[in-house]
Amino acid sequence: MLVALLASARRLPRSVCGHSSHLRPSRVESSILIYNPKFRHSSTSTTMDSLSQSLASLSIAPAANVSHSDTTSPATWREALETNASTPKSFELIKTLVYKPKTAKTATPVPVVVIARDDTETNSAAIGKKLNLKDMRLASEDLLTEFFALDKNSLSPLALNQTLFPKVLTVLDSSIASSSSLFAVHALSSSATLFLSGKDIAAYLKHLETDSVKIQELDFSDLAGAAAVPAPAAKPAAKEKDDAKIEGAVQIAIGVKKEVDFSTWYTNVLIKADMLDYYNVSGCYILKPWSYSIWEEITQWFNAEIKELGVQNSYFPMFVSQKVLEREKDHIEGFSPEVAWVTRAGNSDLEEPIAIRPTSETAMYPYYAKWIKSHRDLPLKLNQWNSVVRWEFKNPQPFLRTREFLWQEGHTAFLTKPEADTEVRQILDLYRRVYEELLAVPVIPGVKSEKEKFAGGLYTTTVEGFIPTSGRGIQGATSHCLGQNFSRPEMFNIFVEDPNDPSGGKTHVWQNSWGLSTRTIGVMVMVHGDNQGLVLPPRVASVQVVIVPCGITAKLTDEGRAKINDACEELAKTLKKAGVRAKADLREGYTPGYKFNDWEQKGVPLRLEIGPNDIAKQQTLTVRRDTGAKNSVGLADIGPTVTALLDVIQSDMFNRAKTTYDSCLKEITNWDDIVPTLDNKCVVVMPWCEVEACEDDIKERSGRASEPQDERAPSAGAKSLCIPFDQSRWTPIVPGKTKCPACGKDAKRWTLFGRSY
Amino acid sequence: MLVALLASARRLPRSVCGHSSHLRPSRVESSILIYNPKFRHSSTSTTMDSLSQSLASLSIAPAANVSHSDTTSPATWREALETNASTPKSFELIKTLVYKPKTAKTATPVPVVVIARDDTETNSAAIGKKLNLKDMRLASEDLLTEFFALDKNSLSPLALNQTLFPKVLTVLDSSIASSSSLFAVHALSSSATLFLSGKDIAAYLKHLETDSVKIQELDFSDLAGAAAVPAPAAKPAAKEKDDAKIEGAVQIAIGVKKEVDFSTWYTNVLIKADMLDYYNVSGCYILKPWSYSIWEEITQWFNAEIKELGVQNSYFPMFVSQKVLEREKDHIEGFSPEVAWVTRAGNSDLEEPIAIRPTSETAMYPYYAKWIKSHRDLPLKLNQWNSVVRWEFKNPQPFLRTREFLWQEGHTAFLTKPEADTEVRQILDLYRRVYEELLAVPVIPGVKSEKEKFAGGLYTTTVEGFIPTSGRGIQGATSHCLGQNFSRPEMFNIFVEDPNDPSGGKTHVWQNSWGLSTRTIGVMVMVHGDNQGLVLPPRVASVQVVIVPCGITAKLTDEGRAKINDACEELAKTLKKAGVRAKADLREGYTPGYKFNDWEQKGVPLRLEIGPNDIAKQQTLTVRRDTGAKNSVGLADIGPTVTALLDVIQSDMFNRAKTTYDSCLKEITNWDDIVPTLDNKCVVVMPWCEVEACEDDIKERSGRASEPQDERAPSAGAKSLCIPFDQSRWTPIVPGKTKCPACGKDAKRWTLFGRSY
Repeated sequence: MLVALLASARRLPRSVCGHSSHLRPSRVESSILIYNPKFRHSSTSTTMDSLSQSLASLSIAPAANVSHSDTTSPATWREALETNASTPKSFELIKTLVYKPKTAKTATPVPVVVIARDDTETNSAAIGKKLNLKDMRLASEDLLTEFFALDKNSLSPLALNQTLFPKVLTVLDSSIASSSSLFAVHALSSSATLFLSGKDIAAYLKHLETDSVKIQELDFSDLAGAAAVPAPAAKPAAKEKDDAKIEGAVQIAIGVKKEVDFSTWYTNVLIKADMLDYYNVSGCYILKPWSYSIWEEITQWFNAEIKELGVQNSYFPMFVSQKVLEREKDHIEGFSPEVAWVTRAGNSDLEEPIAIRPTSETAMYPYYAKWIKSHRDLPLKLNQWNSVVRWEFKNPQPFLRTREFLWQEGHTAFLTKPEADTEVRQILDLYRRVYEELLAVPVIPGVKSEKEKFAGGLYTTTVEGFIPTSGRGIQGATSHCLGQNFSRPEMFNIFVEDPNDPSGGKTHVWQNSWGLSTRTIGVMVMVHGDNQGLVLPPRVASVQVVIVPCGITAKLTDEGRAKINDACEELAKTLKKAGVRAKADLREGYTPGYKFNDWEQKGVPLRLEIGPNDIAKQQTLTVRRDTGAKNSVGLADIGPTVTALLDVIQSDMFNRAKTTYDSCLKEITNWDDIVPTLDNKCVVVMPWCEVEACEDDIKERSGRASEPQDERAPSAGAKSLCIPFDQSRWTPIVPGKTKCPACGKDAKRWTLFGRSY
Repeated sequence: MLVALLASARRLPRSVCGHSSHLRPSRVESSILIYNPKFRHSSTSTTMDSLSQSLASLSIAPAANVSHSDTTSPATWREALETNASTPKSFELIKTLVYKPKTAKTATPVPVVVIARDDTETNSAAIGKKLNLKDMRLASEDLLTEFFALDKNSLSPLALNQTLFPKVLTVLDSSIASSSSLFAVHALSSSATLFLSGKDIAAYLKHLETDSVKIQELDFSDLAGAAAVPAPAAKPAAKEKDDAKIEGAVQIAIGVKKEVDFSTWYTNVLIKADMLDYYNVSGCYILKPWSYSIWEEITQWFNAEIKELGVQNSYFPMFVSQKVLEREKDHIEGFSPEVAWVTRAGNSDLEEPIAIRPTSETAMYPYYAKWIKSHRDLPLKLNQWNSVVRWEFKNPQPFLRTREFLWQEGHTAFLTKPEADTEVRQILDLYRRVYEELLAVPVIPGVKSEKEKFAGGLYTTTVEGFIPTSGRGIQGATSHCLGQNFSRPEMFNIFVEDPNDPSGGKTHVWQNSWGLSTRTIGVMVMVHGDNQGLVLPPRVASVQVVIVPCGITAKLTDEGRAKINDACEELAKTLKKAGVRAKADLREGYTPGYKFNDWEQKGVPLRLEIGPNDIAKQQTLTVRRDTGAKNSVGLADIGPTVTALLDVIQSDMFNRAKTTYDSCLKEITNWDDIVPTLDNKCVVVMPWCEVEACEDDIKERSGRASEPQDERAPSAGAKSLCIPFDQSRWTPIVPGKTKCPACGKDAKRWTLFGRSY
C-alpha cells in the first residue's frame, strides 16, 4: 500500500503557476530508495505516560515543560521556544537523526540514531567511518513514522524505549553526555518540549541499555573534517563550515560565506538585511518593508504594462467551494494534496468545507461562462494581486517555498488560438523584463516539456533563472495557454456564437493564465547577494542612495557638525528632486563604520560620504555596493551624475550575472558528460528527443549517479527546465541525424536540463 | 439557558476596526422581545425520510432536486440555483415567514406560517387585519430552531408535518395554490432545493389538514395597500413597491426607485453598473474592475499620504495561531464568534486549528515586542493592504457586510501618549479626506462612546457617514488608540528603556491601529446613486469622460462615419494628454441612446457627444451625470475646460451631499422628539451624559417605540454614532445646567445618535 502511495505521488503533475517546486515530492521519492519493509514494526512506540514514569523512576525532573505551536524546523522550534515565557534563558536544541546503513540484502538493517547539538555538523560519512558502517543514508519520513510512530520534527532521544532501544544503534555526542547545561528535547511531539540537562539525557538512555546493547558515545568535534571523500557539490564537511564563518573586523556581516554554506547564508542575509522575519505559523513569513517595497516596485511596473495590454484588475474571494475546486480533474490532482480547508467558523462547523484558493482558475471560470455572452465580450482580460495558499509539507524556504505567498494571477479569454498564443508570449516577455530589467537577473524564456507543464493546461511557457552558488535552475514565472481545456462543454462551458461562422455555430473560448510571485525576491537575493549581505539592483531598491556624514570627531564644534549634517540633508533633497530615492543617515551615536556596514548589509546600491574636506571641495565620495569602487565626484551636477551611476550599476549587475549564467550553461552531446557537468554546478543544454519516458529516465540516472550527503540537500536528479525559444545559440539540430544523448532517439530541440529548486 | 445565552450575546463588544456593524447581534436582541417558552416543543420536526414518504404517498414527483452551497438570502439562493445545471429554466422562489401574533398572556400563542412568492410583499399589518390577529411580529431565529429544528434559511412549507401543522395557522398565497408553474422550495436545508408546482405545494399542505385545522388561502394581491396604519419610515406596502418599478423609456436602468425599495435598488445598481457579482460562497462577492479601480484610486492616494507620515507597507501572514489570537481577552471576545478556522490541509488534519485573521493586532504584536528593543526603534509605523475574514452569520450586504473584505490596517507604536494621540487624529483626517475629497461623501469626525469603542483599545475615533435614503448613520472608518493595553507586561510586553528616565526604567509603548475598508465604495454608491444607476465622483472614476459619436445615420457615408469616429478618438487623446481619464465609445451596432444609458448606469461623470454639426462648429456637447445639465463647449481649449468641469462636478456632488446630511442632523433636547426625528429618516444630535447605561436605555426605548414592519428591516433602536470633535456647531453646553434628554443627568457633550448600519 505504501509503495502504491509513493508510486501515485510520482505521477503528480509537476508544474504549477509560478511555483512549480511547490509540488515536487522529491523527499517522498528519495524515500523510495531507502524504504525497507523489514523496518516495519508493531506499535511499540513510547507514550507520554510511559515516558513520565521512566523519568520519575530515574528522578529526572525537567527544568521546564513547554507547549508551543507545531514546529517544522530548528528555526521555527527555536522561535516557538524563545517567544514562550516558560523557556529557560539559556539552552541548546537537540537534533535526533536516524540513518540506515548499507547491509547485506538478507540482513535486518539496524537504524543508527544520532543525538547531537543542533548546530553540530553531523557528517554521515565521518560517522559511518567511525562506526565502521557503510553508506549511511538518512531514513525516510515513512520509516520514522513506522518505527517510532513519530514524524521527524517530533523525534527525540525520548522516543527510544525498552522495546526500541535494542533494535537500534544509539550514538550520543559525548560532550552532551557530560554536560550540566540545558537542552531542548521534543516530548514525543513537535509542539512540546522538555528541558533536560545533558547528563539527564545520558541517564535516560543508559537506563535503556541491555547487556548486549549500549550507547555509543562519540566526540563529534573529533569527527569534524574526517569525512572520507566529499562528493563534488555536496554539503560542506564540518571543517569547511568552520571556514564559512568570517571572523573579526567590521565585515562579519552575514556570519558565513555564501559559497560554503549557502542555505545558512541565505537565511542570514534575509534576517540581517531586515527583509523578513520568521512567523509562528510554520511555512509562513513576515515580509518586512525592506522586501515588501521591492514587491511594490514590481507591482507598479507590471500593473502599468498590463494595463497597456488592456488587462483590468479585479478581486475574487479567497474561498473556493469544494465542488468548484474539484471540477477539473488534472488540475485539482495537481493541487489537492496541499489545499487548506476551512471547516469551522466561530463555534459552528460549516456544512461543507471551503478551500482557500491555491490558484483561481476554477473559482473564476464559472463567472467567465456567465459574463461572456457574445464575441463582443472578448477578449476578457482580468488580473488580480492576492495571496494564495499551498500547504506544503516539504521544508519551507523563504520566498521560494512558502505556505502563503503573494502573487498576481492573470486570467484571459480570447476568441481564437492565435490571439491567446500572442498574449502568452507578451506576458512572458513582461516577466523576462521584471527579472532582467528590474531585478538584473538573467533568465531564459522557453516552453516547458509536457511533463512539466501546468496541471490542466495546453502548454506552459516559462522564464528560467539560475542560482550559480548551488548550480540549480529555478523557475522564475510562468505564462500558460490553457487552450480550450477549461472552456469545453463538460468543463465550464465558456462559449460564444462564432462571428466568423455564417451558420452561427458555437465556439469555445481560448484561455490563458499567468502568474508572478514574491519568489522573484528570493531569486534576486540568491543571485546578487555577497558575503557582506544583500546587494540590491537600483531599480527596485527603496533606498537607492544613502548619504553618510563622515569626519565628525569629538573636537568638532556643534556648528561644524551641523554643517556636515546640513550638507547631507541638502544633498538628499537635491537627489530626491532628481528622482533618486535618497536618504541621509544622520543617526546620532553610531560611527560611520557602523552605518557603512548597516547599509551594505541591507544592499543599498550607492553610498555617498560627506566630510569637512568634501564640503570644502564641494565634492562627495561615491561607494558602489556591487563592486566597492570608490570615486570622488563634484556636487555641482550631482543629480545627473548619480542617476547615470545608478544606471551603470544596474546594467553591470545584470551583465555580470548574465556572464555567469552563460558560462554555467554547458552544451552537451554525450551522456557521460552530463553528471560531471551537473556536479560542477552547471546546467546542461542538449539536443533532446522530447519523449516523456526519456525525461523520467534522465532524472533517475542523473540522480543515482551522485548522491546527496546531507539530510537537507535536495534530490540530485536533473529535470528539463525549458526548451528555449532562442535555439540559434547552439549548433543547429539536423533532423534525423542529431540524436538525443540520453536515449539515442532523434533529437528535436535543444533543451535545458538541470538540478533545480 | 437560552435567556442566559441571549444576555451574554448582548455583552459582546460593539466596535471593531472599520466594520463595527460586523458584530451587532441586533437580530438576536430583537428575539428577546418575542421569545416565549410556551413555544418550546419536543423534537417533532420533519425528517428527510418522512418527507420522502409523504411526497411519494401523494404521487408528488419534484421536477428537480438540487444540492447547492449553503444559502443565506433569496439572492444567494437564486444565485446558487442559477449556476446549477439541474435547475429548471423557469421558476420562482418561495418564502416562508413565521409570525407570532399578540395573545392574552395566559393563552398558548399560535404561530402564523405565511407561504408566498419571494417577491410578494407580505405586510404583516395587512395580513393580521385579514386574519383578525393583532401585532404580528416575525418570530425569532431561536423560536424557529426550537419549533421546526431549522434555521430561517432552511424553512419551507415542507417543514410542516402532521405533528406541527395543527399547532400553527398556515397561510398560503391562493395564486400559488392554483399554479402549475414551478417553485423552488427548501428541502429541510438551505443547501437543498426541490422544484414543485404550486398545486403540489398545496396538495402537500392539504394532506396535513385535520377536521379542525385547515390551510388559510389568501389573495396577496388583494392585500397590497391594505395595511392599516403604515408607520413612518416603515417598509413600503406592495402598492408602493409597484410604484418603485419604473416602466418604459430608455431609463428603466435600475428597475426600482431608490427612495421606494432601497435595498433592491442598491443591489441592482451594483450588478447593472458592473461593480460586483455574487459568488458561490455565501457572503463573498466578486469585485469587478469597475469597483476595484475605485479601490485602487483610494489605495494610491492613501499610500502616498501615509508614506509622508513615515508609515511603511509590509505583509504579515493571513494565518494566526489559536494561542496568539486568544491572548487579549476583550479583543478576542469581540472577534471569536466569527473567526474562520483552517483545520485540514490536503488530507491531513492539522494538529491545532489555525485562524484566518479577522484583524492583525495579536498576529503582529509578538513581533513588535521582538523588534522594538530601544527607543531608537520608535516610532514603528507599519501598514498592510490585505483581506480579512469575519464569518458573519447575519445577512451579508455587498461592501457593507461581507465575510471577506479588503482593507488596510495600520499598526504603530510610539514612546509617548501624545505622539500616539497626534497620529490617531492625523490618520482620521486622512480617512475624512478619502470620504470627502475622493468620494465626495461628507462625514463627521468624532470619538466613539465607551460602549462602541474597539474591543481591547483605549479609545476609538471615527468618521461617521449618513445614508439619507434609509436615514441611517454608517461608520466610515476608525482610528484607534490602543493605549498600553497590548504592550503591557502581561500582554505582549512591548517596552523600551525610557530615555527620559535617568534611572533607566522601562516604559511600555503606546500603540494605535487604524483601518479603512472597501465599505467606502458601498457608502459612495448609496449616497450618490440615483434611479438611472451609479453616479461616480470624478476623482475615483476609472473613466471620467466618455465620448459618444452621434448623428451616424444610415445615409452617412463610410467616410462621414470615419470622420466622426476620428474626431471622437482625437478628442479622447487630447483629454488623456490633459490628464483626464477619457474613453471614446466607438462600439459598432449600438445606438447612441443605448450608449448614453449604458454609461449613465455605470456612473461616468461626464459625457461628450460629437456629431457632424459639432465637428463643423468645432464644439462638443457636455452632459453631466450628476445633474443632467447639457452645454456646448468649444474644442479649442477642451483640456482645461473639461478638467475644470470635472472639478465642479466633484465639489457640487460633495456640497449637495453635505447639505442633505446637515439638514438631516437634528438638534434635539427633548426625549419626545427623538423617535419622530429618527422615523423621519434623520439622525439626532443631543447633549449627552455619556453614561453607558443611558446609551443602552436609549437604544431600547427608541427601538420599542417604532416597530419594524418587515423581516428585512434592521432593528430600530438608536445608538450613539460619535461624539463630534467639532462641538461649536451647537448651542454651548452649560456644565451642571444642560441636561441629557434621555436620563436627565448632566450633559457632557453633543453626541450623534441614530439608527445605523
